[in-house]
Amino acid sequence: MKPTIIQDFYPEETAVCYGCGRSNPHELHVRTAWDGKEGVFRFRPEPHHTGYPGAVYGGLIASIMDCHCIGTAVGALYQAEARPPGTEPVIRCVTANLNVSYLRPTPVDAELFFKSHVKTLHDRKVVVSCSVTANGQECARGEIVAVRVKYADEMPGEIT
Amino acid sequence: MKPTIIQDFYPEETAVCYGCGRSNPHELHVRTAWDGKEGVFRFRPEPHHTGYPGAVYGGLIASIMDCHCIGTAVGALYQAEARPPGTEPVIRCVTANLNVSYLRPTPVDAELFFKSHVKTLHDRKVVVSCSVTANGQECARGEIVAVRVKYADEMPGEIT
Repeated sequence: MKPTIIQDFYPEETAVCYGCGRSNPHELHVRTAWDGKEGVFRFRPEPHHTGYPGAVYGGLIASIMDCHCIGTAVGALYQAEARPPGTEPVIRCVTANLNVSYLRPTPVDAELFFKSHVKTLHDRKVVVSCSVTANGQECARGEIVAVRVKYADEMPGEIT
Repeated sequence: MKPTIIQDFYPEETAVCYGCGRSNPHELHVRTAWDGKEGVFRFRPEPHHTGYPGAVYGGLIASIMDCHCIGTAVGALYQAEARPPGTEPVIRCVTANLNVSYLRPTPVDAELFFKSHVKTLHDRKVVVSCSVTANGQECARGEIVAVRVKYADEMPGEIT
């Protein structure tokens, strides 16, 4: 299917995410293009997004991976209910676990390519894997556990 | 022993980290106070550091945890060699793995308290755990695998 930008369907009033919220003027502009099979996102780091000289800051990679995988999980959950993103009831997810392995330094002067896949989807829990490549080489990979928040207007007391 | 700020001893020319590098004007100012037993850091989020309304962005927690645990690993490695931070040869570490569990939403209007401990230290590899509390409640916990870079002027081709 034609890719859909999942974050475009996050409700305006809750789209305050520092990573991917269009209502946050400081956001990193993570946007997940979800085609029903995988999520893709390309990111060009700023020169100050360094960890060591020449290498991308690991926390930035983790941050982008988090937002991108949550976008993927949300897309997959709509798909599992056979309805388009943004239809009611709105689906929202939070991150229960984020696990990133850094395989080699990620060049700061290259475009980063984030590709994500759904590993498992059971009820409220979606496990999403993600790979980060730059100049054709895999630099990091990771996995998140996304948990669907039951009601659109309720944040969980505990993330389980 | 009296706490030492580990990041103060990172060499000027490589202190470009977006999280903790004094040579990076955009840095988050992570500073690890290491007393030989634990690393502590307190952080007051900015209002735009949100994930959802009222809750701290998970990527920011991961980012701070990364820098803080690396600082702890570096402190522990100097200690293992029975010499003060900053003495030659300079010790540098990179992150091989970062694993964060989010237990509950972290309030954005509170001071966050990051506390880290060394779990294992073997040769070049240090495993550091970290707990994040706000208003006396644990909101997140995690663990990183830090790997010492062999030479002060060499970045690894692969992180192993």
